[in-house]
Amino acid sequence: MSKYWSPIVSRLTPYTPGEQPKLSKLVKLNTNENPYGPSPLALAAIAREVGDSLRLYPNPDAEPLKLAIAEYHAQHGITPAHVFVGNGSDEVLAHAFQALLQHDAPILFPDITYSFYPTYCSLYQVAYRTIPLAADFTLRVDDYLTAGANGGIIFPNPNAPTGCLLPLAEVERLAAAQPDSVVIVDEAYVDFGGDSAIPLVARYPNLLVVQTLSKSRSLAGLRVGFAIGQPDLITALERVKNSFNSYPLDRMAIVGATASIQDQAHFEQTRQAVIASRNTLVAGLQALGFEVLPSAANFVFARHPRHDAAQLAATLRSDGIIVRHFSSERIAQFLRITVGTDAACHTLLDALRIHLQ
Amino acid sequence: MSKYWSPIVSRLTPYTPGEQPKLSKLVKLNTNENPYGPSPLALAAIAREVGDSLRLYPNPDAEPLKLAIAEYHAQHGITPAHVFVGNGSDEVLAHAFQALLQHDAPILFPDITYSFYPTYCSLYQVAYRTIPLAADFTLRVDDYLTAGANGGIIFPNPNAPTGCLLPLAEVERLAAAQPDSVVIVDEAYVDFGGDSAIPLVARYPNLLVVQTLSKSRSLAGLRVGFAIGQPDLITALERVKNSFNSYPLDRMAIVGATASIQDQAHFEQTRQAVIASRNTLVAGLQALGFEVLPSAANFVFARHPRHDAAQLAATLRSDGIIVRHFSSERIAQFLRITVGTDAACHTLLDALRIHLQ
Repeated sequence: MSKYWSPIVSRLTPYTPGEQPKLSKLVKLNTNENPYGPSPLALAAIAREVGDSLRLYPNPDAEPLKLAIAEYHAQHGITPAHVFVGNGSDEVLAHAFQALLQHDAPILFPDITYSFYPTYCSLYQVAYRTIPLAADFTLRVDDYLTAGANGGIIFPNPNAPTGCLLPLAEVERLAAAQPDSVVIVDEAYVDFGGDSAIPLVARYPNLLVVQTLSKSRSLAGLRVGFAIGQPDLITALERVKNSFNSYPLDRMAIVGATASIQDQAHFEQTRQAVIASRNTLVAGLQALGFEVLPSAANFVFARHPRHDAAQLAATLRSDGIIVRHFSSERIAQFLRITVGTDAACHTLLDALRIHLQ
Repeated sequence: MSKYWSPIVSRLTPYTPGEQPKLSKLVKLNTNENPYGPSPLALAAIAREVGDSLRLYPNPDAEPLKLAIAEYHAQHGITPAHVFVGNGSDEVLAHAFQALLQHDAPILFPDITYSFYPTYCSLYQVAYRTIPLAADFTLRVDDYLTAGANGGIIFPNPNAPTGCLLPLAEVERLAAAQPDSVVIVDEAYVDFGGDSAIPLVARYPNLLVVQTLSKSRSLAGLRVGFAIGQPDLITALERVKNSFNSYPLDRMAIVGATASIQDQAHFEQTRQAVIASRNTLVAGLQALGFEVLPSAANFVFARHPRHDAAQLAATLRSDGIIVRHFSSERIAQFLRITVGTDAACHTLLDALRIHLQ
């Protein structure tokens, strides 16, 4: 460790994102990107913003985007004061860990979950306890209610990398039973098969819902995420954000995200196409003998009873197909496979069929 | 304070950026934006990136941009391993405070300086001491050398909001005399009249130089900044960044910033135009009786011996001209005026001429 480093730096375990390969001919099913492009209205709005106005700072509060998100959820009582936006949901989550989860008691999250959570804990020195998922990889709310005092609860819904959904009634039961704890529901994948907890926000001052435009809005390359909660929680996020970076969203991100939120038709069409391809992919994998966890996301989590997952991933890689494999013990025999186009799904299934023979 | 907030949140004093007015007819001389547009090559590169590829995540390390910055400074031994990039220099500075300035001893910075520094200190609980500038608002290196133990030193060069430059030999004297402290030189404005400390990086492992594309590259709306230092310092920044957000630069920011760095001709032409307009502005203000601090930046800091600065700012505002006024005691009689086009400078001078009669 360098004498110049702050002491915390050597204690960090940085997050490792999925590979972004430089070869464009690969079938890329490893980072849960949408196989379809963004809304044409979003692309047009971005293109209009490319000009001399880039010499000017963006709106520091991204007001047009907050307004569009609030209007989208207006039937649930959401106003711009209920909305926080950031540079991808990862930045939103980072600010939430610092602003809302630094308390004396440890926070709780599942043992199998988004692997960035423990990284945020190390960055902000937040104590945590992991709660094991059930044997079938579902989240049991009762395990959280009996875990003792906590400084907050966070989980993805659907969970990652399992894809399993917690029913909305169970999310509500957790939020209602823990009124003194912030409950953060990380809904990166909810548009592919779950019910968002946003309608619960008006009733639960402790509930924060985080979403991203990277998956169901096909804008991973634009870096926009948001959180919805009561203004008290949003104010905490704004205070941290305005102590970190005044303008995290550039001019193109603000206009592109705004137009994307407003394009309901493209959103519906592409997410239904992904859901249909997921059904094809699941049936194909099952036909090859895979056990596939029930997925409400744009990926599936599958294991084969007779083939090692790490070896399968390596074999597929040599075929030019990238899927994601995690080495942690409980899930080391699973592959996480992004739902691509039907063509990409068939390419994967064809390759697996050959290797499993 | 809410029971849901982390204790730190209520102790923060968030930064307040300069006003971004919604009326486009205003003469906007308050946030040091460049009056000229970005490189046409940058705009073309951004426009080419607007398409279906936005569904894919960006390169998490922004490698093409690091390579372009390293090539630009290759004669000083800079390689991509010497370069860190972030979402504006504010994000780069935030990570630097957390990664390099959290030590037992207080860090040092000038009493009159970029007002985000104490905000970062509150966010990361970094102790600090301010060192008064001299009566003529210059930074005296000896005051830092005799201040006792410190956990690091940071200052803008040219300083903000004064515009005053510390000669490079003095920067080197400071870095050489404090080999155990990280010395961060925040060069947001250096291209308008200073010598960068980047050539010193190879000799001083404790030196970190921060720059931005928001000012001399006319890309405030794109949010790109960077730091240059020896790989040991850069590694600390990368560890924090990769524990915070894997992809802070979106796809457009990476390609636009890369093309901008490579367009030397546009950069030279526009910065020389700003320097020429600054000379016009300074002469005009002096002719109206203003005292103007010597500026090496794209703004000037000026006071009038017989007119209250806050009142002048308010009067100009009613004329549709925005300049920045800071209320802290030592500089409460100054106006910070961005160097606009010659036409904007003359609009300002004409308005002042009427009001000062």
